[in-house]
Amino acid sequence: MPIAVDAIARLRSRAPLIHNITNYVVMNSTANALLAIGASPAMVHAPEEAPGFARMAQALVINIGTLSSPWLSAMEGAARAAVEAGVPWVLDPVAAGATPFRQQAAARLAALKPAAIRGNASEVLALAGGGAAGRGVDATDSSDAARDAARALARRFGTVVAVTGAIDHVTDGDRVVSLANGHVLLTRVTGTGCVATALTGAFLGAGLAAFDASVAALASLGVAAELAAERGGGGPGSFETELRDALYRLDDATLQSRMRAT
Amino acid sequence: MPIAVDAIARLRSRAPLIHNITNYVVMNSTANALLAIGASPAMVHAPEEAPGFARMAQALVINIGTLSSPWLSAMEGAARAAVEAGVPWVLDPVAAGATPFRQQAAARLAALKPAAIRGNASEVLALAGGGAAGRGVDATDSSDAARDAARALARRFGTVVAVTGAIDHVTDGDRVVSLANGHVLLTRVTGTGCVATALTGAFLGAGLAAFDASVAALASLGVAAELAAERGGGGPGSFETELRDALYRLDDATLQSRMRAT
Amino acid sequence: MPIAVDAIARLRSRAPLIHNITNYVVMNSTANALLAIGASPAMVHAPEEAPGFARMAQALVINIGTLSSPWLSAMEGAARAAVEAGVPWVLDPVAAGATPFRQQAAARLAALKPAAIRGNASEVLALAGGGAAGRGVDATDSSDAARDAARALARRFGTVVAVTGAIDHVTDGDRVVSLANGHVLLTRVTGTGCVATALTGAFLGAGLAAFDASVAALASLGVAAELAAERGGGGPGSFETELRDALYRLDDATLQSRMRAT
Repeated sequence: MPIAVDAIARLRSRAPLIHNITNYVVMNSTANALLAIGASPAMVHAPEEAPGFARMAQALVINIGTLSSPWLSAMEGAARAAVEAGVPWVLDPVAAGATPFRQQAAARLAALKPAAIRGNASEVLALAGGGAAGRGVDATDSSDAARDAARALARRFGTVVAVTGAIDHVTDGDRVVSLANGHVLLTRVTGTGCVATALTGAFLGAGLAAFDASVAALASLGVAAELAAERGGGGPGSFETELRDALYRLDDATLQSRMRAT
Repeated sequence: MPIAVDAIARLRSRAPLIHNITNYVVMNSTANALLAIGASPAMVHAPEEAPGFARMAQALVINIGTLSSPWLSAMEGAARAAVEAGVPWVLDPVAAGATPFRQQAAARLAALKPAAIRGNASEVLALAGGGAAGRGVDATDSSDAARDAARALARRFGTVVAVTGAIDHVTDGDRVVSLANGHVLLTRVTGTGCVATALTGAFLGAGLAAFDASVAALASLGVAAELAAERGGGGPGSFETELRDALYRLDDATLQSRMRAT
Repeated sequence: MPIAVDAIARLRSRAPLIHNITNYVVMNSTANALLAIGASPAMVHAPEEAPGFARMAQALVINIGTLSSPWLSAMEGAARAAVEAGVPWVLDPVAAGATPFRQQAAARLAALKPAAIRGNASEVLALAGGGAAGRGVDATDSSDAARDAARALARRFGTVVAVTGAIDHVTDGDRVVSLANGHVLLTRVTGTGCVATALTGAFLGAGLAAFDASVAALASLGVAAELAAERGGGGPGSFETELRDALYRLDDATLQSRMRAT
């Protein structure tokens, strides 16, 4: 599968500045994942500076995990500024569908031309209007069930949609690539979905097209998770430590040889 | 001590959704502890959705660590909604007594019918009106000194009070169970008290009564800490990693055999 | 170099309460670093209690990483209260110069008599008016380039300035001490600069003069990083875990023997 064969090398040579407006739970872990893969993260949310900062960045990541109204305004301002400046951005619609507030926020942001959207099955189904209500932040639907919804969503918003789960699917509304990498311990560490989104931002910032950036991000996380599980102590604490080490060590040759894409 | 003999199995089979309105410092570590033990955490604080979210959850955790007025309003709204919907909730009155703002907030929340309160000795003494002022977030009183205050507090608010320290005490105002598990490195990792509170929420969400849920939470954390100290490198970094692994591996047989309760 | 020969022993015997108004990304990691070295951290930002809390603390740490206007007000109130009460405080002007909002905030805070300022080269150059714009939170200038700016800044504000990088420089405007400890993995873990600032607060709280506190903090972090790199798995995840263990184990004899100061 000849996608993004030099993705990591390009990322590390560019060391893109990734502007994150993300949730409190994962600010530390996504910043660390971005540093491990080779990007330069910054977390900036004040309305006085978020739009201007987005214009300077190589990519913007917006994640609605611990959303509030003031933050939503900053997200919208930054997204608009990014699009105006030609800076690609990626949306993580955390728990879309769980509450009306969250559903409306996700829909408003999706309309602001993200280059990519990354969610779990429940979130993608909710955003696509599939009626799934989700249950908090963990998916209650399988990613396969959301595959068609992802394609419809990608077409409606003219974006790339990645739906992650046991199998990940990336689609631009036409093509679909499915990825079988990963490890069950990813579901026992908070914010690994948010890390997938942040890494998508990193590869966007490295200059990859949105489809390739999404595939590279999910494949990198999935392969790193497999490598981490081989070295960790079998629980989520040591797994997360090893996951950061694995992202830091990952290279394109390993990624291409271990990536299971169809 | 035949308390909560199948607590962990019940928790894992139910995988309860635990709604947390907690402090910025521990959002990541408490989410990860909840995932490790088998619960599904969500952090939601916006006034637009916190009450509605609390009604959907199996339990609610309120922790005043990095309190501000807007968050206090969300906490009160969520607590009221939880009680109306029959969803049990647990209060962590972080640094109650350290400032008037914090003392008043803790007192207002304690009056909103939490199923359980979990604090250190200084916090429990302050909330009980014992006059201890604390000193930041770390206890300056011993948990034994707070044992009587805990009983009085439990009676006044019709709740279960857990006071943690070298020895933990859990009381409903009548019964007292004391737990001698734990490890000194728990005092060198930020937010381990908050983890104890979050785990109490997890066991409440699994359907245990508040007294049993409090005992199960403190015993689980104490036993996991002992197991972690046996495997870690002797410092707080490796200890915290091993603590998450130990919570993930913990089962009822190990818990019951290692729990030192009187 | 006979600076702060009993710094760690003094810190551990006093266990100073360190009040932090810091950014969301590093609240957990700086609290854990402070606990590892022997201090007692508290994160308190509400305007209702921040000034009062600052008066009770042994030192105050202000870090503008995820700044917003309400937080800036709390920072100013706490800094003024600290100075009135004779409580030393340290400023971390994160990404000063990256946006006008941030540049103005850093300048306003620097005028409120911090005992010390700790930044990377881009931040120190920006604050000194050197015209460097930085690029997000990571330095794009070398610490050597900022050495003269640091001295000018120290003189202008009557404070101690520490500029960190491959070589760290500490100056009171007159003396300059340069430190060659550290490890490249510090640049691949988020918030290690913020940890340096927090540790400066810890040593200020232990009663050291600002110059000695800054040197002790940077030397402690640099030596701990070297020890951590010897034990870790070669990536930033295991390195950060080992760094906390190394701070916990560090003693004055090790610090003095490994410190490379000129």
